[in-house]
Amino acid sequence: MKSALGFLVAAKRCEIHGLEQLEITSGLVKGVSELVHMLQKERGVSNVYLASAGRRFAAQRLERVEASVAAEAAARERFVQLDTDSGRMAGGVRLFSRIAYVLHGLDALPALRSRVAGRTLGVEEATRSFTELIAGLMAVVFEAADIAADPAVSRALVALFNFMQGKELAGQERAAGAAGFAAGRFEATEQQRLAHLIDAQDRCFQIFVEFADPTLRTIWRNAQTSPAIAEVERMRRIACAASSAPVAAEASERWFECTTSRIDAMRQVEDCATNALLHLCEAKLLEARSDLHDHKRFLDALSALGGQSAAPLAVFFDKSATSAPPAEGDAAGLVEADGLSPKLGRSVLDLMQLQSQRLQDMSDELNTARAALNERKLVERAKGLLMSRRGLSEDEAYKLLRQTAMDQHRRLVDVAEATLSLAEFLKPD
Amino acid sequence: MKSALGFLVAAKRCEIHGLEQLEITSGLVKGVSELVHMLQKERGVSNVYLASAGRRFAAQRLERVEASVAAEAAARERFVQLDTDSGRMAGGVRLFSRIAYVLHGLDALPALRSRVAGRTLGVEEATRSFTELIAGLMAVVFEAADIAADPAVSRALVALFNFMQGKELAGQERAAGAAGFAAGRFEATEQQRLAHLIDAQDRCFQIFVEFADPTLRTIWRNAQTSPAIAEVERMRRIACAASSAPVAAEASERWFECTTSRIDAMRQVEDCATNALLHLCEAKLLEARSDLHDHKRFLDALSALGGQSAAPLAVFFDKSATSAPPAEGDAAGLVEADGLSPKLGRSVLDLMQLQSQRLQDMSDELNTARAALNERKLVERAKGLLMSRRGLSEDEAYKLLRQTAMDQHRRLVDVAEATLSLAEFLKPD
Repeated sequence: MKSALGFLVAAKRCEIHGLEQLEITSGLVKGVSELVHMLQKERGVSNVYLASAGRRFAAQRLERVEASVAAEAAARERFVQLDTDSGRMAGGVRLFSRIAYVLHGLDALPALRSRVAGRTLGVEEATRSFTELIAGLMAVVFEAADIAADPAVSRALVALFNFMQGKELAGQERAAGAAGFAAGRFEATEQQRLAHLIDAQDRCFQIFVEFADPTLRTIWRNAQTSPAIAEVERMRRIACAASSAPVAAEASERWFECTTSRIDAMRQVEDCATNALLHLCEAKLLEARSDLHDHKRFLDALSALGGQSAAPLAVFFDKSATSAPPAEGDAAGLVEADGLSPKLGRSVLDLMQLQSQRLQDMSDELNTARAALNERKLVERAKGLLMSRRGLSEDEAYKLLRQTAMDQHRRLVDVAEATLSLAEFLKPD
Repeated sequence: MKSALGFLVAAKRCEIHGLEQLEITSGLVKGVSELVHMLQKERGVSNVYLASAGRRFAAQRLERVEASVAAEAAARERFVQLDTDSGRMAGGVRLFSRIAYVLHGLDALPALRSRVAGRTLGVEEATRSFTELIAGLMAVVFEAADIAADPAVSRALVALFNFMQGKELAGQERAAGAAGFAAGRFEATEQQRLAHLIDAQDRCFQIFVEFADPTLRTIWRNAQTSPAIAEVERMRRIACAASSAPVAAEASERWFECTTSRIDAMRQVEDCATNALLHLCEAKLLEARSDLHDHKRFLDALSALGGQSAAPLAVFFDKSATSAPPAEGDAAGLVEADGLSPKLGRSVLDLMQLQSQRLQDMSDELNTARAALNERKLVERAKGLLMSRRGLSEDEAYKLLRQTAMDQHRRLVDVAEATLSLAEFLKPD
């Protein structure tokens, strides 16, 4: 027969195992973020290579491919480390499905690259292929954040996911801006796309700031003061203002440079974030292991005193005793008769109340972190619905949602939820 | 190197393991529901025994104790079956903590019973002790429902939990009514308590009906037509109407009888619900195992064709191909060059899209079921906050929340959420 305290120890063991898994998952997130960064760079040079009909960045592209291949091998190593055989990985159903999708995409990369090398596909198709693969990798990070059962780790993962997402949007903005500046003008739809990318980035970094720890927030704030940022803002203004006036074509290079240096600064913040995540997991593990040690010592003390199997800790039913001394002494008396001091009996209850409060707090914090993830999911799905049912572009769909929210003084997520609940009404007529 | 399909198989394996755990958890819920039922009966006869100064139900009480002890042994057997050693039980942290609390209470039962036998405690204290233990057991069922990762099982558990909760409130109503009828009159606070218990029961059965499958709903609807139900309603009316007029004291027995027969009818529905739950788990497992078999056969076919390690399934990037024939034929060509027919390459992608859609649907349904659980948690916590900060009784706290919701045309859960967010303002002055 397992005792009450035996189950508390078992609960702690589950917590430790969960944290160990989180440590592995966090390592995986680190590997994925490196691969994403490399693919973003490869996408950038591949675009220039294709757009210049192979005249520019031919050598750089090969360097980038090599770096991507190395990062891919490292990420695959992380995937292999996951416990896929036992079927006992928490959240494995979703995480493994996402990884399957990513591997499918990675397997197709060599073919994509040979088409880029032979210039048998357009800039847009190449961009879309890389962007899709990156989106798949982002989904892996998303699931990792959703799995995390520790609130602090969950917050860190939500912060990191949103930062990575913001950085990816910054990469897409770089590509869109470079194309516009190279063409010498920005059409209205391109300006709308730029505005959408800037707006969506802001939202991501806002959530990042909300969930990141103070150190990371400071690092991010400092990164914002670089001269490149000011230059990006200046050129954004030109891109968005010049509604029909032509812009200087040579601005394309300058745009590419300053946005690249902005993204590189982001990469440094991201690096700090992934390292902080790993340290956090380590610290949490240490703490939980020391708790387990305490629990076990307590269990030993108990069984030495009264036999661990069925010690009737009558103090269970004497709730008043926890705030005031027992009025009649009944409970305490019974406990003593069974060889347990009232103090020890009390401690078991204290331990349980502590644990119960802790679980409650954790659940509250987790809900907050997950709400942020869920919000994102809802907005994405509402956007997708409007795109498929109403034939809008992604930018138009997002703009419509945002405008509705502003007009009705409602939160974006509420409008998204309402949109999804009205899916039936949105069928194409 | 694990392949994309290898990870899909791993995902399916996780799903199967999750269902196996659910089967064990559902067995545990069945055992717990039996124990709760026995403790409810023991609480009932213990009350009569204590209230009659030991003159009534002495023999029945011993019978009930024996039945409780047997049910307790069976429930403990279920606890022991849980995987407590590996630390890998999903949701183990919360579930095991709840079980620890319950075991603590069960260990204290013999002492409680000897105090009942010796009549060294009052009716109220005895009732409170049993009720607290039952609440602890209900919390175990709650966690089991919260763990379930399969939407259908989760719905069934949410239905069952709410039904058990409603039945427990019916038991509390029986005790409160019996006391009032025995005393010959109902004070205003007792009437308020009755009204609260009736109202809270209705809410539980409403959620049960919302989440139960049609068969169970029919069984429940039929159970409502028994003559005992009409009699309970008639006596409820007397109890609530006779604000100061005395009621016939012998009505106490009649009340006890008709409410008992109502609760026994509930027990039959509960029994059907726990059995249906177990069958559901079995059916889900069969289905998942057959899926796994298909996946594995598919994997074998793939590796026989092209080597499973790194078959570049270029169709990944050719999204248009899923709705229309490939325009340039590039992707199909590449796939064929690697020894995979386009059809097979396509199927992997289909499989993934199917899986992705399925995960999305599951997540939506799960969110609905969990929202019902979360709603309950929020209302309970808001009630607790009002009780501790404003010194209200449970009934008063609930009435205040409900009244506010009605006045403001808001949902109860929204008022509860707002209450919790204003916790700081509610500090006792």
